[in-house]
Amino acid sequence: MKGFAMMCIGKTAWINKERPIIGPFDALVEPLALAPCTSDIHTVYSGAIGERTNMILGHEAVGRVVEVGSEVRDFKKGDRVVVPAITPEWRTTAIQEGVPAQHSEGMLTGWKFSNIKDGVFGEFFHVNDADMNLAILPESISLEQGLMMCDMMTTGFHGVEMANVQFGSTVAVIGIGPVGLMAVAGAALRGAGRIFAVGSRPTCVKIAKEYGATDIVNYKQGSIVTQILEATKNHGVDHVIIAGGDNSVLGDAVTMLKPGGVIGNINYFGEGDSLPIPRLAWGCGMAHKYIHSGLCPGGRVRMERMIALVKYGRVDPAKMVTHRLSGLEGVEKGLEMMHSKDADVIKPITII
Amino acid sequence: MKGFAMMCIGKTAWINKERPIIGPFDALVEPLALAPCTSDIHTVYSGAIGERTNMILGHEAVGRVVEVGSEVRDFKKGDRVVVPAITPEWRTTAIQEGVPAQHSEGMLTGWKFSNIKDGVFGEFFHVNDADMNLAILPESISLEQGLMMCDMMTTGFHGVEMANVQFGSTVAVIGIGPVGLMAVAGAALRGAGRIFAVGSRPTCVKIAKEYGATDIVNYKQGSIVTQILEATKNHGVDHVIIAGGDNSVLGDAVTMLKPGGVIGNINYFGEGDSLPIPRLAWGCGMAHKYIHSGLCPGGRVRMERMIALVKYGRVDPAKMVTHRLSGLEGVEKGLEMMHSKDADVIKPITII
Amino acid sequence: MKGFAMMCIGKTAWINKERPIIGPFDALVEPLALAPCTSDIHTVYSGAIGERTNMILGHEAVGRVVEVGSEVRDFKKGDRVVVPAITPEWRTTAIQEGVPAQHSEGMLTGWKFSNIKDGVFGEFFHVNDADMNLAILPESISLEQGLMMCDMMTTGFHGVEMANVQFGSTVAVIGIGPVGLMAVAGAALRGAGRIFAVGSRPTCVKIAKEYGATDIVNYKQGSIVTQILEATKNHGVDHVIIAGGDNSVLGDAVTMLKPGGVIGNINYFGEGDSLPIPRLAWGCGMAHKYIHSGLCPGGRVRMERMIALVKYGRVDPAKMVTHRLSGLEGVEKGLEMMHSKDADVIKPITII
Amino acid sequence: MKGFAMMCIGKTAWINKERPIIGPFDALVEPLALAPCTSDIHTVYSGAIGERTNMILGHEAVGRVVEVGSEVRDFKKGDRVVVPAITPEWRTTAIQEGVPAQHSEGMLTGWKFSNIKDGVFGEFFHVNDADMNLAILPESISLEQGLMMCDMMTTGFHGVEMANVQFGSTVAVIGIGPVGLMAVAGAALRGAGRIFAVGSRPTCVKIAKEYGATDIVNYKQGSIVTQILEATKNHGVDHVIIAGGDNSVLGDAVTMLKPGGVIGNINYFGEGDSLPIPRLAWGCGMAHKYIHSGLCPGGRVRMERMIALVKYGRVDPAKMVTHRLSGLEGVEKGLEMMHSKDADVIKPITII
Repeated sequence: MKGFAMMCIGKTAWINKERPIIGPFDALVEPLALAPCTSDIHTVYSGAIGERTNMILGHEAVGRVVEVGSEVRDFKKGDRVVVPAITPEWRTTAIQEGVPAQHSEGMLTGWKFSNIKDGVFGEFFHVNDADMNLAILPESISLEQGLMMCDMMTTGFHGVEMANVQFGSTVAVIGIGPVGLMAVAGAALRGAGRIFAVGSRPTCVKIAKEYGATDIVNYKQGSIVTQILEATKNHGVDHVIIAGGDNSVLGDAVTMLKPGGVIGNINYFGEGDSLPIPRLAWGCGMAHKYIHSGLCPGGRVRMERMIALVKYGRVDPAKMVTHRLSGLEGVEKGLEMMHSKDADVIKPITII
Repeated sequence: MKGFAMMCIGKTAWINKERPIIGPFDALVEPLALAPCTSDIHTVYSGAIGERTNMILGHEAVGRVVEVGSEVRDFKKGDRVVVPAITPEWRTTAIQEGVPAQHSEGMLTGWKFSNIKDGVFGEFFHVNDADMNLAILPESISLEQGLMMCDMMTTGFHGVEMANVQFGSTVAVIGIGPVGLMAVAGAALRGAGRIFAVGSRPTCVKIAKEYGATDIVNYKQGSIVTQILEATKNHGVDHVIIAGGDNSVLGDAVTMLKPGGVIGNINYFGEGDSLPIPRLAWGCGMAHKYIHSGLCPGGRVRMERMIALVKYGRVDPAKMVTHRLSGLEGVEKGLEMMHSKDADVIKPITII
Repeated sequence: MKGFAMMCIGKTAWINKERPIIGPFDALVEPLALAPCTSDIHTVYSGAIGERTNMILGHEAVGRVVEVGSEVRDFKKGDRVVVPAITPEWRTTAIQEGVPAQHSEGMLTGWKFSNIKDGVFGEFFHVNDADMNLAILPESISLEQGLMMCDMMTTGFHGVEMANVQFGSTVAVIGIGPVGLMAVAGAALRGAGRIFAVGSRPTCVKIAKEYGATDIVNYKQGSIVTQILEATKNHGVDHVIIAGGDNSVLGDAVTMLKPGGVIGNINYFGEGDSLPIPRLAWGCGMAHKYIHSGLCPGGRVRMERMIALVKYGRVDPAKMVTHRLSGLEGVEKGLEMMHSKDADVIKPITII
Repeated sequence: MKGFAMMCIGKTAWINKERPIIGPFDALVEPLALAPCTSDIHTVYSGAIGERTNMILGHEAVGRVVEVGSEVRDFKKGDRVVVPAITPEWRTTAIQEGVPAQHSEGMLTGWKFSNIKDGVFGEFFHVNDADMNLAILPESISLEQGLMMCDMMTTGFHGVEMANVQFGSTVAVIGIGPVGLMAVAGAALRGAGRIFAVGSRPTCVKIAKEYGATDIVNYKQGSIVTQILEATKNHGVDHVIIAGGDNSVLGDAVTMLKPGGVIGNINYFGEGDSLPIPRLAWGCGMAHKYIHSGLCPGGRVRMERMIALVKYGRVDPAKMVTHRLSGLEGVEKGLEMMHSKDADVIKPITII
């Protein structure tokens, strides 16, 4: 079968591979719609997770079940499914310990597609533990909406959960690429009051407002910390969700946060040795400014909950889809668009 | 000064009283808009909190500050303010113990107006600890909106908080009077997916849908437990918010709840000795069906957070205002409307 | 193989059954030590969970692995293991939803032994999902200590967890049978300050004090509510753990609890239709007196954590073992002792 | 009155000052026993909080009430009291917002003694809001025990609370000076299983074991991260409490922590611009390794809860008192001992 792969750091190509073999609990799925992700760019062009060779890329897919293993109970050939980017192993002692499933076999191991096995940019792909990791996409929900749930929506919303947003909270969302936009939407949907969205591209700013941002902070117009502190009369914000920025962004977040506030980081830091916490703004370690951070939840129930939110009209993640391509081949062009990051690109997708 | 009072159980009248004297931390406020509450009805006609004589009624008011004590820092004569129904004492050891402020001097003691002192249905009323209990009503927010925050909105939203609603949760709200309607709005605003609203009056049903209810359950059409279990394929719901019903409603809530689910009760149970928990539906005490319950939060910051939600367009509580009266005198007519409970009444108010 | 069984409600007998067949993830275990539980008495003599015929009793066992299925990774023939009373199915969507594993396939379904399959009072017994439900018993820990973990310790400690005991909290534990004693020990180990233990039998009182009870409340000397309110100058306690009593005990717990306090119920209520919550003591539904309740956690990690507590000397649950019998036959005599409830019996066990 | 003061950075001296004037809610207290703290050393010799002139030092005191303001209800002249290091203002909107009281008027403002007003090393000292900040020391508790509660015990225990230690958790405590020792004791008292204590001084090691440490990790014998990872078979620990170390210690904590684990920092970082979080060990921001950090809780109820723990025999913090001096003059010698940090010094105190 054909797939679009990372040949090595810095190089992509179309390759041919054997169709994956599935085990008794697994499923084989063919894509109906695919989206490239910024992290694919990091993986290929920055070597952020190290070298990978001949690995099919991609982890955002809506698909159709082609085959299921003998022990699969709830899915069958032909089912239209949302495939989460994160497909953990659910039978581990880590989960009993309360470790998020994303790390159930070790740190980040729930992230399998385009990391520790072939991704979804192929004619077929393998899904481990189908009953626990797939979710039926109802007819009333579009492929585009479903596709935005795999990673963008669950990630953005997880930032809101980790930051523990409350009714009437003041929130800052740093970065309004697609994950940040979903964090804005999630903060509004979680009951935030004022929401600062930090970004500059007009396409993103427009959608951020539609999703509930009340104040746009443009980093091109000066320090975002200064702008937000001024706008809050130096009180700072109750919660910061980090969805973009370089390694100094954690320091910005700590500085704009109130004592007793919480940071929810969903940014993937791809470079450098460390992220500095500024000592004084962190109260010399005594300010009760909590730092939460983590990989997005995956698995079946998470996707079913994202589906419920769209089905019942709470949010429309498809607003972020700016470009529509076609065919499996579309992933190459889509990835290029993410790479060159044209001003009007938020999220390109391809319909197979 | 004139006030509309409970003379004794079963009897109301207009009376004259001395204008309240304020202490150094207090404020004297005159009403700009007032609303009667179902609990005023309970107080007067059911004697739910016991006998009271010559006590001015009412605990929902937006007003103007007339005078402040010498130690008040943040409020001054002329300020337009939201006055929460619950105005706790904030300097108690109970608060340090983590007891909700509503009980900071003993169970329910944060509820002062029309309970342990004269209420707001007078030409003037007394507010204890103004800096901690009043909130400025911004010009952009209407009197009607402000008035709905004092009790209805903070109560309904507290049900959602106690039930611990999560993204995509399935929620049942039992009762869609004004508090239940705010619970529906709060559940949607907190990220619920499917929301069952239990009620029957068309006026309320219409608003419940506008606030986010996805399924209306009419108790006149059979057991609400059966209807909700059928609609959820016998799984039950993740959360129940009780905002109405007689003493059997807790049993209904337990029965329609999933193991591991949470009930948030905001209903004021005015009669009977006890509320039965059904043994079998509660898993003989082993089902992990948690029962949370409590009086609505008051105080300044709570009101400021409600204000933020309206100011930033997250919710409009004024939709519930069905009848507009005028003058202080309007409270008498308003109370009658709550008492006779005409089909089209949700919330009557009077503008002074 | 031989087993001690419930023939029908009210009748026990020794029977012969086929040795259980194990699946690929399961284990076959032979007992090394067994203990009867009060709930066996409820099951047989009160018919508390309904009729059962020819079902082997018992759910407290330490054993030796005899055989493992092909997919079992971490256990092998000969391993000495603690077998939790609760052995859930861990691959269900309920667990992804955050439902406690005890209910992962439906309410109380994690409780399998002597409920929905044969129990442990046989020459061999079947353990589902060995990797997820068994725990190695280290050599340094005695059979008696291990045996107390299966149900008594995990249950008592869960009461403490559900009641959310904090440093310096005042706690009441109602009932000082073995589960209540473990709740006392758990409360002390969780950092409680003053601990009221409600009971009367001298054997239990002595152990309760050793485990950390600071005040003994004897219900034979008057209302336990009155005694505890007097001892706390009418403030009541921060937390109540219910580990015994009839259906009125929940009302007692609510009444002796402070506003803002939490009840953790671990009592199995075997009779009657309902448990009444007293309306006034519950603040007419507004007192923020939370009621938590649930079946004890089982599974491998829970047992490993109980093992760690014993291994590192934090608690010795074997103090509760008052009678030692021998042989599989001992379970009959042990059960009789639980049934007649002699004054000096806390926990009888038998060593095979 | 006489007091031992910081004249400027690097210089201490005895000075004379006016006896403090108290307001209506305040108390004047004379010390019965005093202890110097490492943070006094930081304040004077590292200028950690900036320049201070003629400021009396000290924030650990047990004393006797000399005078109370007109509004003080619960304390009177002659009362023997524990005085917490942290004495917040309790009537602020920050507290209503859920901000820890330590920051109720702004970051770290609850820390008043020897920071924003004169400390306790004088013949008399001023306590703001006596009813909310003092606690009666019962006769059964020694001055030494009471003195260890003001800062050492509440701080160490707060690390345990922030790290969210559970029954059977594996915990690492980095640093076993007096705060770290209290973190060890608190972790054991909170139900931890295995406890790694990182330190080297024999006096401290001995007490750490008495307080419940199961493994001593000596940083002089190699990387503490390596030692702890080896000892846990590379799983890492569930919780880390940081109670010592330079700015690299946060990186060590992140590295030895399991995914899903929590750090509770109670270390006061006195130097440098920032604290680096190691990118890879933090899972590039995706490992769910949470970082909690904050100033110790003060106020009356906190002290009362510490008192309850000592009164009911849960812990004896006086084990840490290694040196006993006498008279107010003793504070000078005590401070010197903290400064030169002799091998056998844990905590010197002086009895007035």
